[in-house]
Amino acid sequence: MHFTSEQRLDDGSLEREFILDSIPGILWTPPTPSPAPLILLGHPGGLHTMYPRLVGRARRSAASGFAAATIELPGSGDRPRSADAEQARADLHRALAAGQPVDEIVDRLVIPLVDKAVPEWRSTLDTLLSLPDVSGPVGYSGGLIAIGIRLAVVEPRIAAAGLFAGSFVPRSMFDEARRVTIPLHVLLQWDDENNDRQLALDLFETFGAQAKTLHANMGGHAGVPDFAGDEVNRFFTRHLR
Amino acid sequence: MHFTSEQRLDDGSLEREFILDSIPGILWTPPTPSPAPLILLGHPGGLHTMYPRLVGRARRSAASGFAAATIELPGSGDRPRSADAEQARADLHRALAAGQPVDEIVDRLVIPLVDKAVPEWRSTLDTLLSLPDVSGPVGYSGGLIAIGIRLAVVEPRIAAAGLFAGSFVPRSMFDEARRVTIPLHVLLQWDDENNDRQLALDLFETFGAQAKTLHANMGGHAGVPDFAGDEVNRFFTRHLR
Repeated sequence: MHFTSEQRLDDGSLEREFILDSIPGILWTPPTPSPAPLILLGHPGGLHTMYPRLVGRARRSAASGFAAATIELPGSGDRPRSADAEQARADLHRALAAGQPVDEIVDRLVIPLVDKAVPEWRSTLDTLLSLPDVSGPVGYSGGLIAIGIRLAVVEPRIAAAGLFAGSFVPRSMFDEARRVTIPLHVLLQWDDENNDRQLALDLFETFGAQAKTLHANMGGHAGVPDFAGDEVNRFFTRHLR
Repeated sequence: MHFTSEQRLDDGSLEREFILDSIPGILWTPPTPSPAPLILLGHPGGLHTMYPRLVGRARRSAASGFAAATIELPGSGDRPRSADAEQARADLHRALAAGQPVDEIVDRLVIPLVDKAVPEWRSTLDTLLSLPDVSGPVGYSGGLIAIGIRLAVVEPRIAAAGLFAGSFVPRSMFDEARRVTIPLHVLLQWDDENNDRQLALDLFETFGAQAKTLHANMGGHAGVPDFAGDEVNRFFTRHLR
């Protein structure tokens, strides 16, 4: 891992961009005494585009004393494109616009992405946890919840997950969802244009976790109210501290 | 209204039992400077039986600077019984035990109760708001959400409602639910034995409020986690202060 930039944010957090095995990422550590428990920030791909929202979430995490980190997804941002994924993405947009079923396309898009991304998040975790100012336990927070589900099943260092039910989850991953037993906080935007509400409710029902909470708010994908973000933070404070 | 007892709780709140137009009730005011915004505590009837849970909710309200009050429901506790309501209650238990449909029985039980109780809550409100240590805006919090729905529609002093979706709501009241436009915080116990989950989700979808939030947690009717109670309190703090 090498850090390619470093800046102090106005809240006192330290933001460092890094490259690890050719994958770009960002690490935020809070101004509070280290080591800080780490929250991995999930996102749909495209670190530059997502930066304003990611840094907002990182600041919120820092305010509760958490470090936060994220890496670019395979095939997104500055990383090499995958022809199959590009094709699946185009097919998905077309099918959604035409009101056609998307299950097969979601499988084709999300499953290879999860298969490739999860080992990358895990090896990033190895490196981040070796830094003096970052510690476990670790949380996963955010969208692309298929990655969160897989991580929750295969990665024992993930102790809690805040899942933003604003992305497609392959039906074939429901078996994995059943095996998720860590505490879960699921955020649902009731009229999310990127998501199927009934699928999100079915998925919530399916999770094997004893401690799972669903917070549903009005509005579309980008309309998560501020107070709902605070509640995610309090969830992590209950489970990671 | 006359107060029949008065005691100081260990958190500094003042608990006063009262009788108003032959209806028993309890008022809790916080130790903070008055006047305090008021939260009406809904419950399924039976003040003595419900007291431990009610006082717990009142303490939580007091910790955020709210007064809290409740009155006995028609036909419950020390109030005269209604033969029709007793019959409907028995029919409901029998139908539930036998797995039979309950819609007609719920109508017969809940609608007369709402028709009778809501004017009583409103006149109680007139009196409570005339006290020097109680003020508006007013919230309604708790179960028997059919009363909360009717109050939210007809009583302009109710500015926000935290509804515990753990009781039956007549389908015929869904039209009223559509007319509820105040901010709502709906609490759902995912495996509530007193409730139909799909009805609760349909009701949430039906509410006319722009600002409505659903918090679902695992467990049965009495298993609401402590943190979920704190979230209700923060909802009222956002909307009543």
